[in-house]
Amino acid sequence: MTKPTATLLISCPDQRGLVAKIANFIYSNGGNIIHADQHTDFEAGLFLTRIEWLLEGFNLPRDFIGTAFNAIAQPLGAKWELHFSDTVPRLAIWVSHQDHCLFDLIWRQRAKEFNAEIPLIISNHPHLQGIAEQFGIEYLHIPITKDNKLEQEVKQLEILRDYKIDLVVLAKYMQIVSADFINKFPQIINIHHSFLPAFIGANPYHRAFERGVKIIGATAHYATADLDAGPIIEQDVVRVSHRDEVDDLIRKGKDLERVVLARAVRLHLQNRVLVYKNRTVVFE
Amino acid sequence: MTKPTATLLISCPDQRGLVAKIANFIYSNGGNIIHADQHTDFEAGLFLTRIEWLLEGFNLPRDFIGTAFNAIAQPLGAKWELHFSDTVPRLAIWVSHQDHCLFDLIWRQRAKEFNAEIPLIISNHPHLQGIAEQFGIEYLHIPITKDNKLEQEVKQLEILRDYKIDLVVLAKYMQIVSADFINKFPQIINIHHSFLPAFIGANPYHRAFERGVKIIGATAHYATADLDAGPIIEQDVVRVSHRDEVDDLIRKGKDLERVVLARAVRLHLQNRVLVYKNRTVVFE
Amino acid sequence: MTKPTATLLISCPDQRGLVAKIANFIYSNGGNIIHADQHTDFEAGLFLTRIEWLLEGFNLPRDFIGTAFNAIAQPLGAKWELHFSDTVPRLAIWVSHQDHCLFDLIWRQRAKEFNAEIPLIISNHPHLQGIAEQFGIEYLHIPITKDNKLEQEVKQLEILRDYKIDLVVLAKYMQIVSADFINKFPQIINIHHSFLPAFIGANPYHRAFERGVKIIGATAHYATADLDAGPIIEQDVVRVSHRDEVDDLIRKGKDLERVVLARAVRLHLQNRVLVYKNRTVVFE
Amino acid sequence: MTKPTATLLISCPDQRGLVAKIANFIYSNGGNIIHADQHTDFEAGLFLTRIEWLLEGFNLPRDFIGTAFNAIAQPLGAKWELHFSDTVPRLAIWVSHQDHCLFDLIWRQRAKEFNAEIPLIISNHPHLQGIAEQFGIEYLHIPITKDNKLEQEVKQLEILRDYKIDLVVLAKYMQIVSADFINKFPQIINIHHSFLPAFIGANPYHRAFERGVKIIGATAHYATADLDAGPIIEQDVVRVSHRDEVDDLIRKGKDLERVVLARAVRLHLQNRVLVYKNRTVVFE
Repeated sequence: MTKPTATLLISCPDQRGLVAKIANFIYSNGGNIIHADQHTDFEAGLFLTRIEWLLEGFNLPRDFIGTAFNAIAQPLGAKWELHFSDTVPRLAIWVSHQDHCLFDLIWRQRAKEFNAEIPLIISNHPHLQGIAEQFGIEYLHIPITKDNKLEQEVKQLEILRDYKIDLVVLAKYMQIVSADFINKFPQIINIHHSFLPAFIGANPYHRAFERGVKIIGATAHYATADLDAGPIIEQDVVRVSHRDEVDDLIRKGKDLERVVLARAVRLHLQNRVLVYKNRTVVFE
Repeated sequence: MTKPTATLLISCPDQRGLVAKIANFIYSNGGNIIHADQHTDFEAGLFLTRIEWLLEGFNLPRDFIGTAFNAIAQPLGAKWELHFSDTVPRLAIWVSHQDHCLFDLIWRQRAKEFNAEIPLIISNHPHLQGIAEQFGIEYLHIPITKDNKLEQEVKQLEILRDYKIDLVVLAKYMQIVSADFINKFPQIINIHHSFLPAFIGANPYHRAFERGVKIIGATAHYATADLDAGPIIEQDVVRVSHRDEVDDLIRKGKDLERVVLARAVRLHLQNRVLVYKNRTVVFE
Repeated sequence: MTKPTATLLISCPDQRGLVAKIANFIYSNGGNIIHADQHTDFEAGLFLTRIEWLLEGFNLPRDFIGTAFNAIAQPLGAKWELHFSDTVPRLAIWVSHQDHCLFDLIWRQRAKEFNAEIPLIISNHPHLQGIAEQFGIEYLHIPITKDNKLEQEVKQLEILRDYKIDLVVLAKYMQIVSADFINKFPQIINIHHSFLPAFIGANPYHRAFERGVKIIGATAHYATADLDAGPIIEQDVVRVSHRDEVDDLIRKGKDLERVVLARAVRLHLQNRVLVYKNRTVVFE
Repeated sequence: MTKPTATLLISCPDQRGLVAKIANFIYSNGGNIIHADQHTDFEAGLFLTRIEWLLEGFNLPRDFIGTAFNAIAQPLGAKWELHFSDTVPRLAIWVSHQDHCLFDLIWRQRAKEFNAEIPLIISNHPHLQGIAEQFGIEYLHIPITKDNKLEQEVKQLEILRDYKIDLVVLAKYMQIVSADFINKFPQIINIHHSFLPAFIGANPYHRAFERGVKIIGATAHYATADLDAGPIIEQDVVRVSHRDEVDDLIRKGKDLERVVLARAVRLHLQNRVLVYKNRTVVFE
């Protein structure tokens, strides 16, 4: 779809008539729905939906859509987000030593696999500056130590505001981001190099090797206060065997990390991910 | 859901307001939608949807729902099917020599993994009669030769009518069912022991071995006039290597055949499969 | 191979000349090697190998092969097992409520997918007696409570001895087998309904659902003193999504449990699994 | 292993004593085998093996190993290749429009995921020259038309000789390489964007979409005179659904193409692939 669209992501206490009410809101205002998907969690009594419609022919001005929808949403007790497809989100990619996810995301963005700008790379190490220069992206080296961490996080938050960043992608960024930081800037996707919830924390490949698993995985999730415990967006796995030493697990794992992180970022940028109860609904 | 539901499967030329109109039909009649999924094929200009709602509280009597919906469907040019969850479909399982799919389907039906009766097994061989007896299912041995085939098909059609069969499952039934038969009884799911469209026809495992593939598959599809060419409902694969001889491919393949056929049958019985342009939309 | 073979499974401190020495042992005695596979764990300094050769033409009588090989093995510091393909192992399948793995293993044994006898089913519940009768297998109902457990385990050990059982398969047997039991009867394969080491212990599907994983798995492993911590023989996974409620995870998981347990049992029965450092080498 | 090794890849009519004879050749010359794997195709009567040993302590000079081994190989009727791990193979990567495989291979080579030099990129289009410059690799634009093809192939063969190229990687190179070329330069790995043998030739994603497959794949194979019919080295798949339009299949397919081609190239460079009867044995 090259024509601009609007997308509503809604979560709402389940009740009769929701599908009709929301569809009517769009239809009665001249909108043409091009994608709609919903899910009801009966146990939680929650209705979740994603609706995308063409703005062409929609008779509410953009600035007013939110207000107008809220008139319906409020009585329903609904929480909602409104996005426009021609708003280009701005990503900051955070890295440490490894470059595979960074390279992969930059390549995909250039190939227009997802719609976003990458104005900024932040790293606690200087090593990957060359890649940033190669692709004309700003690179800020912000070293982290036990003592300066909180202070550096304050600085990082300011930078994110200055650069008007919408999403932080931790692309094998190996420092733990504090709960306070995440509280202030919640839009963070992390790639963890294991099949969560197995092997939380450091050295998952070494621990996977020790455990003698026959399958390794990678998990992309929203960062939360608890390490590697946030809502999972996407996971994938690959088979391994006794022939794979730790270095082989790391090597095979990198292929997973790249593709899993990229899928998650793309799904998020397309406003296809709804979070509730520490889980995600992914409207593919 | 243990409460009875109604399901509409609709395919319709794409136009504005479809989601709203269909949702309204249900809502305005007191229905509570518990599952809704849709897909628009923009190129084909086709809108497809599955909507399921609780009959409890729905103020149209069952016998009238179709007529009432048709009043909306006709102006839209929509084709539709209406199903009720408490109508128990009747399956006829057709077999030849191999019993793995038969056993698997019977087990799942007993385990209530899908909602159907299995009143009948048809086979062109006598061998599997014992299994039928073990489970108290009628077994009809209808041998097929080049000369008697059409005549036996007439007999088979009568039997399907007498037993009020809703779905024929070709569970490694190794005779080709004629185009004429399929025309008269189109509800047929077949399991083909390859990853279609590779290795259509006989001996796919031998041919897969010759080709030296590193992955084998199985495909469940609706039978059509063209052999192994009907709309694919479900496929799955497993890795193989040079260590696998043909017998190993056959053995590993059986595990795939069982689970792929079972998934397809279950999806069909839950009215989650819509066919158009020789493809399926599966509303999982 | 229908001709009888002998198989040596050897683990040995790595040193020069091992492949040659072992191959020579067989060759110089007239043996024809039909399968050989090896693995060196350089870090652990351990060499592991599986060699299978035709007994036809081998000039050492069966009773003497072990002694003859030991003459080579001892100086090498090697541990080894010798198996003959025409020795039919005897399995005891232990169950509780669920029957899917039991049915699956019985079917495969009848279909000669693996070479073993199943003379005995043990259960802490009476429910599955009917299946045992259906297939003419002895069924012993041995109920377990907190108070009688150790005593019942003594009884179980006696029974395993009386029935000359070679392998116990815990096929969704839901009681924890004590460390003492495992010490006395170590040949036990268990199927755990998660992708270990995630979700050790009870209710893994419920916990997987809570965690919002996008993939679930099943793991077959040798039982050890630590719950669900023994050497992993085989694992496999299937994708799930927000549309899957706990019952769906359980249902999809059963398909994995069946095939993963069956693969592990078959590999073990073919003497293809070597254990070291709580990991397995699987010589497929 | 950072210490240099030698690798023998051998295929030989099956006969008694092969494992012993070959292992003895290495052992008796002071070699320490670090990896050995074998496979017997009983039907074809063929024995295939890969043996890798440390050159340190091996008492035959490199130049003589081949001759010495041939003394054993010839009476056995064996075909064999000898490789040294410190010989760095030289790759030429051929491209057309798409850059994803090219980028991926260059990244992996820089990351030392495989041991090779990439001195040359050849393309029938000028577009990807920038990438070559970015990474300091020679780029030769050799346009192909119906009329100049054979003449350009002569030129290409000369270039491959001048650059001392050991392996040509067709990385989404969209011209068909003639049988004559392949005859003169057989070391060619191609990535085909389907799960062979499905969708041979052009536009496999469009045809996969038409067929309504639920899984797409990519296949890396040695190029032979018959299009997309050469021995398969590696394949992999990903699930798709009705929600995926052709562009989505292409996008998802690219991820497969990258990783499948990379695995195949790495396996080949490590001398782990033996070809016979249009199939490969991959000694992982």
